[in-house]
Amino acid sequence: MIVGGGRGSNGIDVKLAKKLGARHVGLELREFPDGEYKFRMPERIEGEKVLIVQSTYYPQDRHLFELLLITDLMWDMGAKEVGAVIPYLAFARQDKRFVDGESISIKTVMNLLNAVNISTLVTVQPHKKEPLKDFKGRVVVIEPFKALIDSVKKEAKNPFVLAPDKASRELARMVAEALGCGYDHIDKERDKNTGAVRIVHAPDVDLAGKDVIIADDMITSGSTMVPCSEFAHSKGARSVVAAAVHLLMVGNAEEKMKKAGIGKIVGTNTVPYKNATVVDITDLIADSLKK
Amino acid sequence: MIVGGGRGSNGIDVKLAKKLGARHVGLELREFPDGEYKFRMPERIEGEKVLIVQSTYYPQDRHLFELLLITDLMWDMGAKEVGAVIPYLAFARQDKRFVDGESISIKTVMNLLNAVNISTLVTVQPHKKEPLKDFKGRVVVIEPFKALIDSVKKEAKNPFVLAPDKASRELARMVAEALGCGYDHIDKERDKNTGAVRIVHAPDVDLAGKDVIIADDMITSGSTMVPCSEFAHSKGARSVVAAAVHLLMVGNAEEKMKKAGIGKIVGTNTVPYKNATVVDITDLIADSLKK
Repeated sequence: MIVGGGRGSNGIDVKLAKKLGARHVGLELREFPDGEYKFRMPERIEGEKVLIVQSTYYPQDRHLFELLLITDLMWDMGAKEVGAVIPYLAFARQDKRFVDGESISIKTVMNLLNAVNISTLVTVQPHKKEPLKDFKGRVVVIEPFKALIDSVKKEAKNPFVLAPDKASRELARMVAEALGCGYDHIDKERDKNTGAVRIVHAPDVDLAGKDVIIADDMITSGSTMVPCSEFAHSKGARSVVAAAVHLLMVGNAEEKMKKAGIGKIVGTNTVPYKNATVVDITDLIADSLKK
Repeated sequence: MIVGGGRGSNGIDVKLAKKLGARHVGLELREFPDGEYKFRMPERIEGEKVLIVQSTYYPQDRHLFELLLITDLMWDMGAKEVGAVIPYLAFARQDKRFVDGESISIKTVMNLLNAVNISTLVTVQPHKKEPLKDFKGRVVVIEPFKALIDSVKKEAKNPFVLAPDKASRELARMVAEALGCGYDHIDKERDKNTGAVRIVHAPDVDLAGKDVIIADDMITSGSTMVPCSEFAHSKGARSVVAAAVHLLMVGNAEEKMKKAGIGKIVGTNTVPYKNATVVDITDLIADSLKK
């Protein structure tokens, strides 16, 4: 087996090859003055199984197109199979029309992955699983929250888990169970136009002396984490930890979260971000592929 | 008929709708803090023919993905046909493996246009026509050099046309014929690794007092135009005009060309560029669609 990656691999391709006992091949990238680019596979791969690692964090469209380009190239070079490892799957939140007439972006993404005949799609904690049904090959979904528990434990001696919405309640339950502590969820509302988040219903809990863990699938602008942390502190929390798989952390998310009393962030390396306790998910990907 | 566009339409969508007597619909774009975006079609389009204008200049991958996203949306909304007008078609120069193991990028682009079932593809002066054979729908190719002749004429009273390579010789012949003047071509060599351009064979012509027109399909970094202009001046040219369809004009192309003695640039609006005599190609697109 051969493992390679594009500019969105975040170094996982090299580590994954080692874990799988596969050959890592560094694809050569050439950029042109006008912003175009091309890839080159410097080794022969006829009849080989190939795995391309490419996370689709910002710039999402570029990382996606690179993956499509590289996949097509692998087939052209005679690969027997081409699998894609997409640790962070972009456009997954746009899985329905929230307003009439909107694009369902993740549907188009699945359509394009199918167009280049990706055999296996491995992805980590997708926002929802339903859109993956449109993918024609084999789908492997990795839910790495269990791998985060050890790191979360270190940060929260007297834990209580909060989910920022009903959708994340199951995640919170799992974390709470592993930690042997209580959990609950907040009902928030996101303004469809401004994106601002407002708590509409909060649980009647006493968090005095608790180390509150806010568990979610991803942190983007921090606009979800901020009101949850403020709520936890208003209920007497001793500390607040933000735990999420995908640390997109855009704009001034870090500053906003710090200001709202979030002391620590725990996440994974599906997206490159440094100011957090980052858990490497390479082992989970390797294990999922051995099955 | 309905005409719309993405962020790469360069305003041609609005003008084209007017020319065709079609309804222009401005697609709503919403951008998210993490760099994702979505489009919305604010009007009903069931059973309508739709034309999406999107040129794929920098950022090429974004403009391409936007076009794919919008096309998918138009079908979802019940369009009867979805055509794409791509005035500048990116990745068209990567139409073969120049070095073993390279991606043939334009092949992937055609594959993706097919994946979203674009019915008609309208494009202007593609680098080569062969790759368009992979497109499954109807292809309309516009060669707008004739539309540039009037503007070129004004800049060159005593004209002589130079093609920067054999591939552009036919273009030069056409321009020379329209102007009733002589033409010839230069043989240049591009270093596969550095991209530097060197003249390997130059015609034995006397250009004393001539207004030399260097005709090519596109100007990118100016690295082709510069040695051609220097050659023309070394042969006594009075002035040099650069005429090309696609004015990508990246980096310090403008400065380099000026320094090499190029007085004027003539081109079209397939790519947004202002410091030139810009000929609008909307009429040609409209005419090609009426056929």
